[in-house]
Amino acid sequence: MSEKFDAVDVIRTKRDRAELSDGQIDWVIDAYTRGAVADEQMSSLAMAILLNGMTRREISRWTNAMIASGERMDFSKLSRPTADKHSTGGVGDKITLPLAPLVAACGVAVPQLSGRGLGHTGGTLDKLESIPGWRAALSNDELMRQLDEVGAVICAAGDGLAPADKKLYALRDVTGTVEAIPLIASSIMSKKIAEGTGALVLDVKVGTGAFMKELADARELAETMVALGTDAGVRTVALLTDMSTPLGLTAGNALEVRESVEVLAGGGPSDVIELTVALAVEMLAAAGITDVDPADKLRDGTAMDAWRRMIATQGGDPDAELPVAPETHVVKASESGVLTRLDALAVGVAAWRLGAGRARKEDPVSPVAGVELHAKPGDTVEAGQPLLTLHADDANRFPRALESLTDATDIAPTGTPYEPTPLIIDKITA
Amino acid sequence: MSEKFDAVDVIRTKRDRAELSDGQIDWVIDAYTRGAVADEQMSSLAMAILLNGMTRREISRWTNAMIASGERMDFSKLSRPTADKHSTGGVGDKITLPLAPLVAACGVAVPQLSGRGLGHTGGTLDKLESIPGWRAALSNDELMRQLDEVGAVICAAGDGLAPADKKLYALRDVTGTVEAIPLIASSIMSKKIAEGTGALVLDVKVGTGAFMKELADARELAETMVALGTDAGVRTVALLTDMSTPLGLTAGNALEVRESVEVLAGGGPSDVIELTVALAVEMLAAAGITDVDPADKLRDGTAMDAWRRMIATQGGDPDAELPVAPETHVVKASESGVLTRLDALAVGVAAWRLGAGRARKEDPVSPVAGVELHAKPGDTVEAGQPLLTLHADDANRFPRALESLTDATDIAPTGTPYEPTPLIIDKITA
Repeated sequence: MSEKFDAVDVIRTKRDRAELSDGQIDWVIDAYTRGAVADEQMSSLAMAILLNGMTRREISRWTNAMIASGERMDFSKLSRPTADKHSTGGVGDKITLPLAPLVAACGVAVPQLSGRGLGHTGGTLDKLESIPGWRAALSNDELMRQLDEVGAVICAAGDGLAPADKKLYALRDVTGTVEAIPLIASSIMSKKIAEGTGALVLDVKVGTGAFMKELADARELAETMVALGTDAGVRTVALLTDMSTPLGLTAGNALEVRESVEVLAGGGPSDVIELTVALAVEMLAAAGITDVDPADKLRDGTAMDAWRRMIATQGGDPDAELPVAPETHVVKASESGVLTRLDALAVGVAAWRLGAGRARKEDPVSPVAGVELHAKPGDTVEAGQPLLTLHADDANRFPRALESLTDATDIAPTGTPYEPTPLIIDKITA
Repeated sequence: MSEKFDAVDVIRTKRDRAELSDGQIDWVIDAYTRGAVADEQMSSLAMAILLNGMTRREISRWTNAMIASGERMDFSKLSRPTADKHSTGGVGDKITLPLAPLVAACGVAVPQLSGRGLGHTGGTLDKLESIPGWRAALSNDELMRQLDEVGAVICAAGDGLAPADKKLYALRDVTGTVEAIPLIASSIMSKKIAEGTGALVLDVKVGTGAFMKELADARELAETMVALGTDAGVRTVALLTDMSTPLGLTAGNALEVRESVEVLAGGGPSDVIELTVALAVEMLAAAGITDVDPADKLRDGTAMDAWRRMIATQGGDPDAELPVAPETHVVKASESGVLTRLDALAVGVAAWRLGAGRARKEDPVSPVAGVELHAKPGDTVEAGQPLLTLHADDANRFPRALESLTDATDIAPTGTPYEPTPLIIDKITA
């Protein structure tokens, strides 16, 4: 078959800092998906995009071409509006677990098509799979029925959505081309737009435990994604939130489910509550609902009811005992004072090394492994008090996890003033 | 097998504008050669090198790693010094043909390991293969014996020299990463250093028909290669020469052999003579011989004698009639005046489309196809006089060749002053 464009010409265009035409973008995504553009050509193009950038028009066209590579879902026949949330990934980020049933309890359907964790950030599906019986795979019919009846679904994204992105993401992972804002933005947004949600709230994290370490980069990513969503007719807003320290007091699969249930029961750590409610308010507003206070739904038990229905409909037992680690190791405070830093990346890497995460996508994860925090930045600690508890299936996991924690904390003399970092840094709208 | 480095870390280093360490460079070239680094990783790295550059130290190490990927030849046991020449490629560039026997006639052995043409520039081996019986493939023993007895060899480079370069060159060709000065310089120099020549003269061409269109780029490439050769103990010098118009009056295989024989017989076009003698002087000087004037050897027939022995030793018949094209087409001057431009790239593409060159490396070439020039820039022409004659096996080749010639010439009113471009622009020494 004769091709409309030549891969080397497309690569040269971006290499030489010119703009790719609509035709070049449509062709290169389609030809890559069907194998007419080779991996070694796409990786060279991805590096040129990473180093030379893309205009808003190019990113928008690139995103649309990835959407066009697969199927699109349609929730327009549902009886209620839809809203989804996407987090760029952080340590202890279990927010989706309480958030989806909370928003459903407020009258908005939440089709949360999720992925698994890779590296030091946990995966939502991995967390839920620590609940006995719960299954991540749903057919499109099951998904639609659950959305209608329960209002909240957290399940695995099907292979049919944006297959070009799936292929390109795997390639970027092994070719040093992950960290390109145009490619990150189009990857996330192609899946979310193809998923068919009516409204979308993005939680773009900044800090050591996040993908974006610098606020300026996080802001650029958030602005790019909000523009892409808006252009595609999805009401999109982004919060920039702090990821310099873990969210809540747990990082790990069953550990985070337990903490999420505490939040749904009206308790739980204040930062998890704050972010869950803030994201719920944005999702409801984007779906046109401004007269419901989601905090009420945590207090009155209706969010918990939605959680129980959501878990049970996917085969899980909401009353089952969650598994507990056979081995634990306590890390104690080395001195007394004010904990001024508890590093998100260090804790994330420790949880990962304990078995909560995977290095390769085919690796299994441990439901019980993870890190429990006994103090958060700003807290006063006494020398010798427990600071962290490590959980694992096997005590042999502790030494390498401890290595990643050697410079995880700063403790300042008692009385040192501590200025907390705001959890919600900024809000980006269209 | 566990690897000493990680490909993604190496790519990220160059992507983030840091210097690659010696260990990283040695590893990535070795791992790529044995397949532990994938094509899509190397192409991403090549694009990062193209866009972010390399220091002299990195280029030198990269070159040495490519040399270390294969065998090295050793001419130190020969009775005479060795000198080689490399041209970065141009249109009508048959200089190697008269040059190798000329330098041999002056007492220096010339081991000219050559390649085939790709694209609009011709290949030395393709040209010589238009001589009935001549063969390009020699064993190392045959090469060594011919160098000792005749003093000049033009033959195909064996697969054993710098196999990493061979693999990388093929990859760069399809991934838009050819035009990187560090990679061009290390590709050329790794082969020439591995070949084992004692002295090397580089003919770096500048102009429309050359790889380097801009003088600054050509100068940077020349300086980089001279430094690499010098660092490796090869006495290396470069001439920057003009390639805005074809060399001599022919572009094509048998056509260029015929013109080369004219030069060896003491005739031929003045630009071909000028460049052949200038390069011979540099090769002799680099080999330590300064008391012989190569122009004498063209006049007294000793260069021709060396040519005849060189061709005959490789099975060719120096007295055989060269093949002639069955079809010709004459392009006439559209107006009278001074020919101020005859574009090298246009003529090169025309010769290529007539069948003299190949688009893919497995394509055959025509020995008879090509372009004959009846005027050169600076000449006065009359409207209707023949300007070019196209030669081909098949008249169907003419239309596409003529298309490439639509803007190949400028003719100014008679009397317009014409300032000739100097053929030899500059000389770069260590």
